Amino acid sequence: MSNPFDFIDIPNISAKPRKQALTSIIDKGLDYFSTAQLLENYGQYIDIVKLGFGTARLFEKSELLRKVELLTHADIIVCPGGTLFEIAYHQNKSHQYLEECINLGFNAIEISDGVQPIDLDIRIELIRQAKKLNLIALVEIGRKDEQQDNLLTIEQRITEAKCLLQAGADKIVLEARESGNVGIFAQSTDIKIKEFELLINSLDPQNLIFEAPFKHQQAWLIKQLGSQANLGNIAVADVLSLACLRYQLRADTINF
Amino acid sequence: MSNPFDFIDIPNISAKPRKQALTSIIDKGLDYFSTAQLLENYGQYIDIVKLGFGTARLFEKSELLRKVELLTHADIIVCPGGTLFEIAYHQNKSHQYLEECINLGFNAIEISDGVQPIDLDIRIELIRQAKKLNLIALVEIGRKDEQQDNLLTIEQRITEAKCLLQAGADKIVLEARESGNVGIFAQSTDIKIKEFELLINSLDPQNLIFEAPFKHQQAWLIKQLGSQANLGNIAVADVLSLACLRYQLRADTINF
Amino acid sequence: MSNPFDFIDIPNISAKPRKQALTSIIDKGLDYFSTAQLLENYGQYIDIVKLGFGTARLFEKSELLRKVELLTHADIIVCPGGTLFEIAYHQNKSHQYLEECINLGFNAIEISDGVQPIDLDIRIELIRQAKKLNLIALVEIGRKDEQQDNLLTIEQRITEAKCLLQAGADKIVLEARESGNVGIFAQSTDIKIKEFELLINSLDPQNLIFEAPFKHQQAWLIKQLGSQANLGNIAVADVLSLACLRYQLRADTINF
Repeated sequence: MSNPFDFIDIPNISAKPRKQALTSIIDKGLDYFSTAQLLENYGQYIDIVKLGFGTARLFEKSELLRKVELLTHADIIVCPGGTLFEIAYHQNKSHQYLEECINLGFNAIEISDGVQPIDLDIRIELIRQAKKLNLIALVEIGRKDEQQDNLLTIEQRITEAKCLLQAGADKIVLEARESGNVGIFAQSTDIKIKEFELLINSLDPQNLIFEAPFKHQQAWLIKQLGSQANLGNIAVADVLSLACLRYQLRADTINF
Repeated sequence: MSNPFDFIDIPNISAKPRKQALTSIIDKGLDYFSTAQLLENYGQYIDIVKLGFGTARLFEKSELLRKVELLTHADIIVCPGGTLFEIAYHQNKSHQYLEECINLGFNAIEISDGVQPIDLDIRIELIRQAKKLNLIALVEIGRKDEQQDNLLTIEQRITEAKCLLQAGADKIVLEARESGNVGIFAQSTDIKIKEFELLINSLDPQNLIFEAPFKHQQAWLIKQLGSQANLGNIAVADVLSLACLRYQLRADTINF
Repeated sequence: MSNPFDFIDIPNISAKPRKQALTSIIDKGLDYFSTAQLLENYGQYIDIVKLGFGTARLFEKSELLRKVELLTHADIIVCPGGTLFEIAYHQNKSHQYLEECINLGFNAIEISDGVQPIDLDIRIELIRQAKKLNLIALVEIGRKDEQQDNLLTIEQRITEAKCLLQAGADKIVLEARESGNVGIFAQSTDIKIKEFELLINSLDPQNLIFEAPFKHQQAWLIKQLGSQANLGNIAVADVLSLACLRYQLRADTINF
């Protein structure tokens, strides 16, 4: 017996590295020691770590190098936040950006155009460049600004996602922000059910990562998609709570 | 002088183990090292640690064993969350559950029926079994679901609490959830004052633990019941903030 | 190259000790080890640490001594929260309070009258006493109670701030509470723009610290005042996120 209470039946979730049931963390600046602690205890519940927004730019280089190495060695996909990519892109430095990601040991990048639109053709070309460098390409769809985001219809998102996947994107990330109020979520953080249904009727949920910072969003998505749901923008402090939702060990997803 | 600023008068609160002024923490997955840090600094302000929902099921067994031992040695009452008990019960494994709690070193269990009602007679029998095994019996009243919880009148809660105490329950825990929106709290997290008053007119507050995740709830209860109030569902990060409320060291409870 | 992605241009912010771009943390009870970790990684982004409300009173003396020493050695301004001062004052122990601050190694105090008004003359006299002891004097304006705070007009706040600065106050702290709902903020945490504009037209923002616990408040103030804005009541977990806002590395303040 290696697990406590192992006579209690829970759903089966495959071990890492896995294709589904992905949990993507937003890291707002964990130091090396805290990262090591996190992995030692909960590494098996973490698939992707995104260094939130531009935090990577503010680390000491040596500290960032050893942190990224620690994460990749734990079978984790690691990338800087899409916002840092966007800044580099708008400063005409996307080539340097990709090179630096490689130099720092990242095994993935996030390509997004949340702050300001970037032509689909350009994003497709960037995906190809990333793939050539053996970087995993996570591609985010949606706008950071609520009003801007509302102008994107679900049909546009679906069409865009299909193009990006065909171009080689490994996963499509559905932007929700830390505030959980854009994309398939309303300003109130409630779920836009019709949009969600259109989405999963057109795209394989295995290819999608739903950003879902709040428990009610996580629980709802798990009830719709099962324990296999890919979820993103998960706070570091919520890793084990989310695992409980996946394993039906919390009231919100229990199925007696 | 062992305390800084000890010329500043603060209310007297008895040392651990105590009968009142209990603080019950909800632990959503602290690792061993963080638990040790917490106890070294704030152990004197912590009376009960509940391993939230089903988190205990997802620990490594060896890690859980040493964590539980650390907590019990610090004069702390430790139990898995009631949700884990409920899952075991509905899988017809409540006997194994009690045994496993003993094997893992827990000195308490929480018996609840927050997800789905369990007959009072059955809960009373479970309390007796727990007491026979020398486990402290914390018994929670209330439902996780807001609409379900609204169907329970305060009179029903009082009657139930009396029966459970008579059957040997050590404390009655008044469910509020992490969202602080059920039991004596409205959906808005405001306090239902009339219900609260009926409750404390019928039951000795010393026998009750009020779950109160938010500061305004904690401050209000301390103003009503004094520093002696037993409070639960306290976030790990709020231990010292709550102690400040108890000791009238925060604006919300100061009494010039 | 000592910084990752250093080809990405970011605004210049002067190094510590600095007069502007101050970040003031609210510490709700970090232990020594966590404090050391915080400083090692993010010390350069932290200018002031306030030991929130009366937490300092509940520390072990030896623990507090070494924590305060660690902070002051990292070029950080450290003081107990104004609430502790107010309690001492109302117990007629402000003289002992100042002495104890010196004995414990604090290099600053916060003088406030957030719980109950203290005559301006008395606060001015206390500023003088603090300065004579070589303590930095942070003086807070505003009330903890929302209704009480609403009775203070912006004109009164400006007049008071001018008097206190003339008397030697090093910085005026604009009370917002952890709930971000008083002072220049409405109950909804929205910004009172007219009040803000009156304030910065009458006072040099360099002399002010705007308490701003929420991201939308921080981002708005940075957009108005630039990266140089002095911001307070910043949660420990938000240090690097706020630095990203200052350095235009987060969507909310990006300026393409």
